[in-house]
Amino acid sequence: MKIDGIHYRTIRVAEDGWSVEIIDQTRLPHEFRLVRLATAEDAARAISEMWVRGAPLIGATAAYGLCLALRENGSDEALARAYDMLLATRPTAVNLKWSLDAMREAIGKVGAGERVAAAYAEAARLCDEDVEICRRIGENGLGLIRKRAAEKPGETVNILTHCNAGWLACVDWGTALAPIYMAHDEGIPVHVWVDETRPRNQGASLTAFELGRHGVPHTIVPDNAGGHLMQHGRVDMCIVGTDRTTATGDVANKIGTYLKALAAAANNVPFYVALPHTTIDWSLSDGVREIEIEERSPREVTHMTGRTEAGEIVTVEISAPGSAAVNYGFDVTPANLVTALITERGVCPASREGLLSLYPERR
Amino acid sequence: MKIDGIHYRTIRVAEDGWSVEIIDQTRLPHEFRLVRLATAEDAARAISEMWVRGAPLIGATAAYGLCLALRENGSDEALARAYDMLLATRPTAVNLKWSLDAMREAIGKVGAGERVAAAYAEAARLCDEDVEICRRIGENGLGLIRKRAAEKPGETVNILTHCNAGWLACVDWGTALAPIYMAHDEGIPVHVWVDETRPRNQGASLTAFELGRHGVPHTIVPDNAGGHLMQHGRVDMCIVGTDRTTATGDVANKIGTYLKALAAAANNVPFYVALPHTTIDWSLSDGVREIEIEERSPREVTHMTGRTEAGEIVTVEISAPGSAAVNYGFDVTPANLVTALITERGVCPASREGLLSLYPERR
Repeated sequence: MKIDGIHYRTIRVAEDGWSVEIIDQTRLPHEFRLVRLATAEDAARAISEMWVRGAPLIGATAAYGLCLALRENGSDEALARAYDMLLATRPTAVNLKWSLDAMREAIGKVGAGERVAAAYAEAARLCDEDVEICRRIGENGLGLIRKRAAEKPGETVNILTHCNAGWLACVDWGTALAPIYMAHDEGIPVHVWVDETRPRNQGASLTAFELGRHGVPHTIVPDNAGGHLMQHGRVDMCIVGTDRTTATGDVANKIGTYLKALAAAANNVPFYVALPHTTIDWSLSDGVREIEIEERSPREVTHMTGRTEAGEIVTVEISAPGSAAVNYGFDVTPANLVTALITERGVCPASREGLLSLYPERR
Repeated sequence: MKIDGIHYRTIRVAEDGWSVEIIDQTRLPHEFRLVRLATAEDAARAISEMWVRGAPLIGATAAYGLCLALRENGSDEALARAYDMLLATRPTAVNLKWSLDAMREAIGKVGAGERVAAAYAEAARLCDEDVEICRRIGENGLGLIRKRAAEKPGETVNILTHCNAGWLACVDWGTALAPIYMAHDEGIPVHVWVDETRPRNQGASLTAFELGRHGVPHTIVPDNAGGHLMQHGRVDMCIVGTDRTTATGDVANKIGTYLKALAAAANNVPFYVALPHTTIDWSLSDGVREIEIEERSPREVTHMTGRTEAGEIVTVEISAPGSAAVNYGFDVTPANLVTALITERGVCPASREGLLSLYPERR
């Protein structure tokens, strides 16, 4: 997507033809800083220190990490070392292993002299594939926005989203935000209510940043506000992403998603979840019971980082000293609260039958 | 309630017998600072700069402001000037006018020489009355906690609350927190989930502070977490306050309350609202349509104040620069989501009939 009119992907090979450029997302929204990765260690650090985040982007960064490793040393041993190092950066990211395995397979097919070229080609292919999946999710979701826009000609379509399921989490487009970018780009008047998404504020920092730079009208709201907005007809639809989807259509997404789904159902607001097939866990059938919820550091709740008027980035304690806090990363929205799932293959009901209608090979 | 074992009210006449001591609540939770008010201007400043907040405490501070004014100048003109100045401090606070009018009436009944004494007596009476109302709300709510505790002997009763309806908002006890303090004081094992309550974080700062200092076990959670907690049986009941209650039992309370009420209803968690009769607006019958919601400064959303490791209090920008934000102060929870209202006269269904059963004089 665009930053100040210039098209960016979140990861790309630099002008030198081999090193890799990423955006240091820990500096967002206060600073847009490109970082050059020249070694596999650089790539590992970019993932573990969360300069890059979002499953697809983590996978892409790991893939280029292997390219950089092979460039320095093409041996099987060096490859294995880099594989292990990159895999260890974020132990719970399913996409990471999937991407590294795809790379290893592609590299294994060619002779020693062609390994580097094959690796770069496979990493580029993985990135392009992610972009294509997001683009298709965008087109499928666009149909839903077009339909809503047609129901209120000339009026703005108000869409609420939670957390960041945008291009910053992917290679381009994003998942939940892809339909919104496409609607905006084709001239549909859209406006996005951006949940700030405490405790890490990915909405207020990342989603607001990327929508703003691309020129999409949006307003940041505290996570507490969505119910009030829906009660008063200020939301036409919700679109969120998901980190894990059960075969029955339950979705695990950033903590607080469930509360918005409840408010949407109570106020007859359609609640859509956008996802690539890679988030579907076909082995699960009851999200609330079966999906284990990551518990993160309480410090993300009790402390907050931001920029002072003098431009300094500082961290401050915002809660009563000595009080305990807990920090659940995700919650599960049961399928019955989800109006439809938006996938790269189309839109379907949030149910086993719905998903199987798009992925019949899973029957 | 107690701070480090010492009993405090949020407002009291100082040892000199005439000046007034309050807690500078803008310094909480980082600093517990008592401030001495010596003039009506001091009292006005304490209200307008939000050193004191919460309708009952604002009313009490204004009452003592009139005492301080009369002490300097007992004329009708001086009284009228002080009345106007104090009334203008927080234009929307209903309690403020009610309190000032009660003072003026009491003062009007006595001769010029007795005005000061009559004023101090009336201010003290208003404070004692608020304490008594909160104590009765506490006792009535305590019955509900006792009942739940009896259903799970030996186990902790987990109570979720939103914002601060504690003693810091009143003169003592609080409304929603009064039953919790009483349960704790009589040895019922209670634990409070404290919603941080963005954007002003009254939960994480004030509620956590007062519960902590009194020794009540509690855990701060992001506002996003309540649905997840209820889904997993981690909440036995919710108790919140209200700023305005319709004759039909709809309640306007801090933004985000409605989302918790939806989650409570979806998960069969009782949702109680504690209130003094002064919050009931008998002229209203449809809260969502009739109660106008205050829109506050977006800066409360985009910026956050806290303490650095060096102990400095600083304000930082936490969202994408240039992005708009909106800040609705309250939302309305429809009566059908409220299990019961806890008032100083007893517990009743959130309905016109329920309220009239406790306040038959309103028939």
